[in-house]
Amino acid sequence: MTDLRVRPTEQTLTSSDLYAALSDPALESMNFLNEVAGRYPAAISFAAGRPYEEFFSADDVHRYLDRFREHLRERGYDERRINTTLLQYGRTKGIIADLVARNLALDEGIEVDAESIVVTVGCQEAMYLVLRALRTGDRDALLVVSPNYVGITGAAQLVDMPVVPVRDGPDGVDLDDLRAAVARTRSSGLRPRALYLVPDYANPSGARLTVDTRLRLLAAAEEHGLLLLEDNPYGLFHDGTRIPTLKALDSARQVIYLGSFAKTGMPGARVGYVVADQAVHGGARLADELAKIKSMLTVNTSPLAQAVIGGKLLTYGCSLVAANEREAAAYRRNLAAVLDGLAARFPDGDVTWNAPTGGFFVVLTVPFEADDALLEYSARRHGVLWTPMRHFSADRDPAGRQIRLSVSLLTPAQIETGLDRLAALFAEATAGPAA
Amino acid sequence: MTDLRVRPTEQTLTSSDLYAALSDPALESMNFLNEVAGRYPAAISFAAGRPYEEFFSADDVHRYLDRFREHLRERGYDERRINTTLLQYGRTKGIIADLVARNLALDEGIEVDAESIVVTVGCQEAMYLVLRALRTGDRDALLVVSPNYVGITGAAQLVDMPVVPVRDGPDGVDLDDLRAAVARTRSSGLRPRALYLVPDYANPSGARLTVDTRLRLLAAAEEHGLLLLEDNPYGLFHDGTRIPTLKALDSARQVIYLGSFAKTGMPGARVGYVVADQAVHGGARLADELAKIKSMLTVNTSPLAQAVIGGKLLTYGCSLVAANEREAAAYRRNLAAVLDGLAARFPDGDVTWNAPTGGFFVVLTVPFEADDALLEYSARRHGVLWTPMRHFSADRDPAGRQIRLSVSLLTPAQIETGLDRLAALFAEATAGPAA
Repeated sequence: MTDLRVRPTEQTLTSSDLYAALSDPALESMNFLNEVAGRYPAAISFAAGRPYEEFFSADDVHRYLDRFREHLRERGYDERRINTTLLQYGRTKGIIADLVARNLALDEGIEVDAESIVVTVGCQEAMYLVLRALRTGDRDALLVVSPNYVGITGAAQLVDMPVVPVRDGPDGVDLDDLRAAVARTRSSGLRPRALYLVPDYANPSGARLTVDTRLRLLAAAEEHGLLLLEDNPYGLFHDGTRIPTLKALDSARQVIYLGSFAKTGMPGARVGYVVADQAVHGGARLADELAKIKSMLTVNTSPLAQAVIGGKLLTYGCSLVAANEREAAAYRRNLAAVLDGLAARFPDGDVTWNAPTGGFFVVLTVPFEADDALLEYSARRHGVLWTPMRHFSADRDPAGRQIRLSVSLLTPAQIETGLDRLAALFAEATAGPAA
Repeated sequence: MTDLRVRPTEQTLTSSDLYAALSDPALESMNFLNEVAGRYPAAISFAAGRPYEEFFSADDVHRYLDRFREHLRERGYDERRINTTLLQYGRTKGIIADLVARNLALDEGIEVDAESIVVTVGCQEAMYLVLRALRTGDRDALLVVSPNYVGITGAAQLVDMPVVPVRDGPDGVDLDDLRAAVARTRSSGLRPRALYLVPDYANPSGARLTVDTRLRLLAAAEEHGLLLLEDNPYGLFHDGTRIPTLKALDSARQVIYLGSFAKTGMPGARVGYVVADQAVHGGARLADELAKIKSMLTVNTSPLAQAVIGGKLLTYGCSLVAANEREAAAYRRNLAAVLDGLAARFPDGDVTWNAPTGGFFVVLTVPFEADDALLEYSARRHGVLWTPMRHFSADRDPAGRQIRLSVSLLTPAQIETGLDRLAALFAEATAGPAA
């Protein structure tokens, strides 16, 4: 073929040509965390908060798909309709909302109509949809209990919504600081719309709010005119005691509940959801407004992926508690191994740590600066990865002396070896450069 | 359990509490189209642009998944690594970029590095990522060849980016109007960043740009300092002749190529991609910047869904031309049936229509107003659905006398019956209310 191509001068896009947040130091630091992990694949990783892989089997995908097809047959679908349900464009709000509703009732005591649920591309899309819906202009702000998971600040950034941190404190949310943050936000001309938090085993702090704190928070939210965005990825990984979610305690639809099947279902399906049963003027539910936004973002969540999650739910009678017995036991075992291992290696009190009763994370306070440079050194010289706590705070305390360990991805043997390597690093860092 | 729930007053969210676009008439009208289709499920639909379903088989999902697993084995992955590749969180840019690159080289003569590709949750997410990346502030604007697919205006709306229509004209893009639109946009204080168009069988107009027009467009884009967003869902459904994509003709990375596997792969997988090989200051590619945004929106595209698309690509040697022989034949057959059927039923010239050589759509010009009220009446009284052309234009011409027919979803028998019903409706509408 004759070369018909035109030959203009190629341009380079500079940072002034692109979305400013792409140059944001917070985004750069997240990139660094991924990048250093990628450079040291043999390092033992206390950094990755990914779920446990030892029980993964791709054959489950086939089984769950077929279980969901069987479910459709039981509902009277013929083969043609089953095929179009799985392979065609689907309903914006999703095809497994009824199963999600049944799961919420069973495992969480949350009673909600399936029409109030939007099945999303993971919890991250749910966060985006909610914040996009709540943003009416540049005055709307989001409060976030901090330190916090970077996903919520990232979603807020995408909709240009300012984020105001609220101290977690010993209760998991400091209600005095909440009051002060609301006042501060308003006097700066902004309108605080909602508070985001993870009441069960927050990432990174590992805190779990008591029932009393949850009830006081609901009252405070009503007083301040705030919606509550409750995110619950780790609630099932507890010590044997459950505490009702904010949503289960909420009788006035103050809570928008963000759900995920990444830890309890299958991360590779990439399915989450949002329960948004708030009334919208005109008779609709907030879920219907979120669906309008979703239709312009991802059109619908993959029906195939939903079928896999649906099949897993059905296999376990819609209870993810039942579905995750092995995994929950592994996380409990890992958490105990890390806490016991820390106690054995750091008996003198110069290194201290929190004592979460569940979840994936432990936070250590250390007698030296734990920054990205030390993390790089730790990976390169000692073969162990972890996360500097400064990555979880908006103010990114430059004098940070805390690190987050994730217990989720490792085997007991890796935990022991990893803790040995951590101890070697700490000894070196404590002794200082002159040693 | 003691009822511990607080009982505050439930609030209703009004339109001033929510994202203004949710009340936008354009969004309401799209809702109407979906809603009227839902109310008349037995109506023959010339409205739905969904791909042909007659060859759908859920068993293909199993086959494609296993083909992809086999591919990973051929690449030296052990079973553990295969399981984590499919079931765990995945790489932001995707796990099938190499297969996509091979497909583009084979089917389109587009040579691009796999690292310049981001695999997305359908083409819709790709549109959002690009527009979010290009928006530096409220001065950045998007030009769109209009009438146009509502997805691009929806994505622009999500990032609060103004959209400026450019006439398509007989060539598929009116380059004089492009020049005028650029000038008009600039003099209103906005900065036009890119032009979006579908060069092959545009939705709804059915136009296909000639090579000459494509080359002149590339030159015009360089002159005006515009990027070109090329969307190509229908390029494979042609009359036997192919025309190189803008991307294949582009030697200076002016073109960002938006791809979709919704029509050629499997809509239920919900997988698309963007080729963004533009240089970004500092040595990265635009694809890397898009990945940063994606990480805050959907984290990664479902590896399971990618595996299904990957398996289909591998099954057909990475050629979607080969994979879609039956479907392409069905669309050609359907298009011919509709065009012949219109000629047979409307010989007198009071109803006219375009003559696309491929794609899914035919546009009719009729001697009466074709509005939503007539559509409702058509569904209720005549059992046939179609789409008023006013839904595809920003100005939404209130005097619109054009309708879009989609040929994609129907069998030949449904086409004949549907055209009979359309003829009955037209006769009534032409005669007027007094008849």
